[in-house]
Amino acid sequence: MECPIARALEEIGEGWTLLVLRDALLGARQFGEFEARLGIAASTLTRRLDDLVGKELLERRLYSTAPARYEYVPTKKGEELLPVLLVLASWGNRWLFGNGSEPILPVDANSGARIDPVVVDRASKRALRSGVVQLSAGPGASRKLRAALDAAPRVLGARKRGRRRSDTPG
Amino acid sequence: MECPIARALEEIGEGWTLLVLRDALLGARQFGEFEARLGIAASTLTRRLDDLVGKELLERRLYSTAPARYEYVPTKKGEELLPVLLVLASWGNRWLFGNGSEPILPVDANSGARIDPVVVDRASKRALRSGVVQLSAGPGASRKLRAALDAAPRVLGARKRGRRRSDTPG
Repeated sequence: MECPIARALEEIGEGWTLLVLRDALLGARQFGEFEARLGIAASTLTRRLDDLVGKELLERRLYSTAPARYEYVPTKKGEELLPVLLVLASWGNRWLFGNGSEPILPVDANSGARIDPVVVDRASKRALRSGVVQLSAGPGASRKLRAALDAAPRVLGARKRGRRRSDTPG
Repeated sequence: MECPIARALEEIGEGWTLLVLRDALLGARQFGEFEARLGIAASTLTRRLDDLVGKELLERRLYSTAPARYEYVPTKKGEELLPVLLVLASWGNRWLFGNGSEPILPVDANSGARIDPVVVDRASKRALRSGVVQLSAGPGASRKLRAALDAAPRVLGARKRGRRRSDTPG
């Protein structure tokens, strides 16, 4: 599967994955903390934490011996899902609650000023909305994928279909 | 459920939802186009498209009569998941393929320049990474949620737990 969206969804596409990570990013570490926040059965939580450790999204660390006790800490790979959670929350606030009805809003941790998460290009700071982003073959593309992407431009969210190059005059 | 992340995942948390939307945002409109791209059974696709129409992520439009034929077009609500797809793709490229092995890379649709999607605050343009974003009670918060958020700061991805206000000197 060469699509990074499909691969990412394969890795974290089950809703609960991001919910466990949400709680880990909000400071949950010990089994009982996740259990209390998520309100799920211990056996289910054990499977989910093991899965996240296996995917290297959480790291399991021994924090006490006799009896052995472990805590679960986000790895760098897990921590870098934070922006995904923020844009999901932003979309949820806008489309599932609506302006004036949001139960939770993001603010700056220092100033308390309201934050409005938006996805931009790092260099140009341009907002990445419909019609701005085209998919191109990367260094790991198969020959078949490269040929397909070269043959017809694929622009995310363009209003009209991209024209094939062969349609271009000249 | 007052958490916008949990609500968003409830709405779009099944992996295939975002895959169908991905293809719609890349220009798929007719049933057969989705079928060819996704490679799933027609009956499954029918259920999924109906679900997305029911959630108002896609709109079903009649494009031909005798026989009646419909196309599926992203709504504004669906289109605004584009940034979610971009940050997911970016995370997938980084953590599941790795630098130099990406099969697909985002580029500017006009200039062809490489794009690096990053989540920032719209006003300050500050990157929203660990330790920067705190959750606060919004206008729709229940009394219980408001009391909980006021009692203890919850900062996404902070290295150390936030101190309770009652721990603050003075």
